Amino acid sequence: MTYQELFASILHQKSYLCVGLDTDLRKIPAHLQSEADPVFAFNRAIIDATAEYCVAYKPNIAFYEAQGPKGWESLRKTLDYIPKTHFTIADAKRGDIGNTSGLYARTFFDPSSAGLEFDSVTVAPYMGSDSVQPFLEFEGKWVILLALTSNPGGADFQRLSVNGKPLYEQVLTTSQQWAGADRMMYVVGATQADAFADIRRLAPDHFLLVPGVGAQGGSLEAVSRHGMNSHCGLLVNSARGIIYASSGPDFAQKARLEARAIQQEMEKYLDQFLPH
Amino acid sequence: MTYQELFASILHQKSYLCVGLDTDLRKIPAHLQSEADPVFAFNRAIIDATAEYCVAYKPNIAFYEAQGPKGWESLRKTLDYIPKTHFTIADAKRGDIGNTSGLYARTFFDPSSAGLEFDSVTVAPYMGSDSVQPFLEFEGKWVILLALTSNPGGADFQRLSVNGKPLYEQVLTTSQQWAGADRMMYVVGATQADAFADIRRLAPDHFLLVPGVGAQGGSLEAVSRHGMNSHCGLLVNSARGIIYASSGPDFAQKARLEARAIQQEMEKYLDQFLPH
Repeated sequence: MTYQELFASILHQKSYLCVGLDTDLRKIPAHLQSEADPVFAFNRAIIDATAEYCVAYKPNIAFYEAQGPKGWESLRKTLDYIPKTHFTIADAKRGDIGNTSGLYARTFFDPSSAGLEFDSVTVAPYMGSDSVQPFLEFEGKWVILLALTSNPGGADFQRLSVNGKPLYEQVLTTSQQWAGADRMMYVVGATQADAFADIRRLAPDHFLLVPGVGAQGGSLEAVSRHGMNSHCGLLVNSARGIIYASSGPDFAQKARLEARAIQQEMEKYLDQFLPH
Repeated sequence: MTYQELFASILHQKSYLCVGLDTDLRKIPAHLQSEADPVFAFNRAIIDATAEYCVAYKPNIAFYEAQGPKGWESLRKTLDYIPKTHFTIADAKRGDIGNTSGLYARTFFDPSSAGLEFDSVTVAPYMGSDSVQPFLEFEGKWVILLALTSNPGGADFQRLSVNGKPLYEQVLTTSQQWAGADRMMYVVGATQADAFADIRRLAPDHFLLVPGVGAQGGSLEAVSRHGMNSHCGLLVNSARGIIYASSGPDFAQKARLEARAIQQEMEKYLDQFLPH
């Protein structure tokens, strides 16, 4: 999916919601546990319930990996089930020396490898250019690089001062030499609202993938006010708040209501903050 | 495996060699391709040929993940086959917010999760304390944190100056507040020989996992001279140089000879550099 196609999808859906598929076998409603593949049965119901209100889905790879080989089967079936109109993110936070990153890139981008073809993958920046480059060699695919994450420990290194600027700003500027806004996005946590203005100055055109709204306490209003650019430039993720809105048989219906409430709030902010 | 047990194993084997199982289906000798599980058949032969000369095995998770569900089966069988006398490293370079890192930790440490129980896992530091802590909650297991990696891009961020010191030194000092030398090791590339003296000043007791000898050009002699401490404190990895020493039917025999040559060099350095 291209930059323009993603923007068109946001305008069409009146939403920049990404639904996080952090599907934990231990949290799936009891009535689904007897299904042959409870994780896929859960995801399918969540996708059916929310597709109308979002533009992207983000399976969190840890949750599938923790189930061993059958988890990777659930992931493949889930990815196949997501409508082609929606942007897909493998939230894997990979990154290694060049030849190894090349294999991670094949895993998530080349369907002849592990049976998966995501639009994008999240990548950790610590190992630098040649750990990111192999992901960019897949035409039309996106790297979503960690910049300023939503967790408390994010401050341990990301906000350290390098030449008078925080490290995450250095990550933003250095990595723009590797790819432009048409191939790279950045992870910026919603809990870091103070940083959005600075980040927009350094990366005015890029899409930002924003976790941390909801369970982690970030404000959608603040993120939208300070983060939106002329192509929206935001994908705001919500996982637990939507997929675990209810633990009963009505989980999909409750997920739908949560997603719709966020979409309606986003429709308002698109009207309010998107330059006309 | 404890710190003292690992040191005892090094003295017993007269070796601090870690064999990297970067097993690429495309590079496995032709005569193994007809096996039901060529990756496992290859690894089993490599383990049989090299166990006498090494103290650790390090499957590079990307190579298994790229094969989808059957790759995870090959990984599980490989891990089960490694003798319990040998230290095992899941080279996965994971790291995410707390609850997600907790799932990665279960994947590699809790056999009831994905069927795997490694002694250790490599972790990326960018997301800070709460991305590392969940791995430390598994009693007796190790975190091997990226400090100064062997690849060219390692310099992009790891050597940036933070308060007058390179970032990787900050990673070394901050992370020592999370765990001691009995639970944490650091990745330091063999291509970074200039840094070993500084690193030993900051982390005198820790084990260092050292990739980059062989194919990447690092010197085993320099690493051993500058990196060895009173408990050896080194696990030097070699992957391609051993496992792909030959692409013919004699691959295991050639791997054995390569591993033995490195062990013999290490025996000399243990004699020369280990304080008596």
